[in-house]
Amino acid sequence: MHTLDMAHILPRLKHDEQGLVAAVIQQYDSGRVLMVGYMNDEALHRTLTEGRVTFWSRSRQEFWRKGDTSGHAQYVKKVELDCDGDALLIQVDQVGAACHTGEYSCFDAGGELPARVGHVPEKE
Amino acid sequence: MHTLDMAHILPRLKHDEQGLVAAVIQQYDSGRVLMVGYMNDEALHRTLTEGRVTFWSRSRQEFWRKGDTSGHAQYVKKVELDCDGDALLIQVDQVGAACHTGEYSCFDAGGELPARVGHVPEKE
Repeated sequence: MHTLDMAHILPRLKHDEQGLVAAVIQQYDSGRVLMVGYMNDEALHRTLTEGRVTFWSRSRQEFWRKGDTSGHAQYVKKVELDCDGDALLIQVDQVGAACHTGEYSCFDAGGELPARVGHVPEKE
Repeated sequence: MHTLDMAHILPRLKHDEQGLVAAVIQQYDSGRVLMVGYMNDEALHRTLTEGRVTFWSRSRQEFWRKGDTSGHAQYVKKVELDCDGDALLIQVDQVGAACHTGEYSCFDAGGELPARVGHVPEKE
């Protein structure tokens, strides 16, 4: 069992009203952003110690280790915290599709919104 | 003025209790994830029509067009919605540093957490 002292980490987190922080999941080699999930302290502890990503499911109110049902596990490569402690960036190696719809990324499933493209002025 | 009918987009959003959706900001060419912000409907409308990213600041309770104060603007390249409508992925061209600390990414500022690295079994 991999052990970890969370005492240095927990004071750096800024939880929302439900005690959660956002976790952005990114495929480590391609850079594709796969999904956004949420973690409470125990889900983060499991993620940091098990080599696999565990979320807290807000809709089901239960722990959700990605892949235990679907087989589409996320193997942890790197975990970073943001400047104000309310978001995590987790680089993973994704098995199969990240999205429950069967699409590779949850952002493939929702798709692109029509947006005006901007350009840095000095690059024009 | 770029116009956009939000009538096809708003029904697809799943807002939190504060009327917000999460927005993951990613540098379009390098793939580096820069920050996570939040948008209400009007911030999303501005982002989709102005070519620049506007957030809703939860701490200041006001619109916050990235770069208006700092000069560190985010020019929009692509906007995607996720499968359940509560997260956006916005690819941008970032001017200067994305983080208010002066670090390029907010995840550089918070830094790496100690994590056990996992491996896809068939790749071992």
